[in-house]
Amino acid sequence: MQFDLDHAVPVLERTPRVISSLLESLPEGWLDARDGPEAWSPREIVNHLIHGERTDWIPRARIILAQGSYRRFQPFDRFAELKSDRPLDDLLEELDQLRAGNIATLRGWNIKQKDLDLTGEHPGLGTVTLRQLLATWVAHDLTHIAQITRTMAREYKQAVGPWTEYFRALQN
Amino acid sequence: MQFDLDHAVPVLERTPRVISSLLESLPEGWLDARDGPEAWSPREIVNHLIHGERTDWIPRARIILAQGSYRRFQPFDRFAELKSDRPLDDLLEELDQLRAGNIATLRGWNIKQKDLDLTGEHPGLGTVTLRQLLATWVAHDLTHIAQITRTMAREYKQAVGPWTEYFRALQN
Repeated sequence: MQFDLDHAVPVLERTPRVISSLLESLPEGWLDARDGPEAWSPREIVNHLIHGERTDWIPRARIILAQGSYRRFQPFDRFAELKSDRPLDDLLEELDQLRAGNIATLRGWNIKQKDLDLTGEHPGLGTVTLRQLLATWVAHDLTHIAQITRTMAREYKQAVGPWTEYFRALQN
Repeated sequence: MQFDLDHAVPVLERTPRVISSLLESLPEGWLDARDGPEAWSPREIVNHLIHGERTDWIPRARIILAQGSYRRFQPFDRFAELKSDRPLDDLLEELDQLRAGNIATLRGWNIKQKDLDLTGEHPGLGTVTLRQLLATWVAHDLTHIAQITRTMAREYKQAVGPWTEYFRALQN
């Protein structure tokens, strides 16, 4: 699929509601599920998404659109703010508000096809386009929703008994 | 995680809303995304979940709870009803109604701990308990939500450009 803003924005807009529909007021055990000692829990993934709203996608898009002489992004710390003592429902509310504001900003820029070819400098990957950044924002949302649900499913790896044979996703 | 009805039912209840939040009124291209010629699209996965509500989980639980002399389940056809010309929003509505009815049925049974050990005969897997059946229902929901979002994410496998390196989930 080619990247297209009119296809991408509806996905970005839906993410907070998808994650809230899944996690809001769920029994705590699910929120702290973890598929291995280094893996992230659903709660940590929500924290990571909030951090991305503040420091990653829109700030980087702004650097690209400004087209100043220095277009190098701040490194994004994937492990920042993973832990938080705040109630999950507060975090979900914050994700919703931050995302709504960021989508409003994105729409307000009124980005044209040619703007999508503008570039910035990723600290690890080199030259990247606005198109690639926005496509990555969408893919990042979707893969983290997949990660949350896969992590939850694997909590029942033993409980499903013989059915484990039919579930590749439950096997490591 | 041990299987616990009070933890399982909230996940089962949320599934239709999670999937509707994700897919309702999305541009069509996402609904027919397919990660390989044999893989299922989000639309087909919704059809598969509807078929499961009608023929799999509750009918099998009923066989187990009845404890008749013949407790062998009908084989579940994973490929039945995958195709449908109905608008997706109709399918989402149907999934929501079927699931709500099935959860009401499940609650109405007032299942006790000892009932969870009752068994039926799976045509391929042999003896299975009600506990395993219900745990599988939950894991099945969650892995299919993961599948929908992973399938959508992979539509941008090319579009993310150099970021593909950071996304194991986008690689085959």
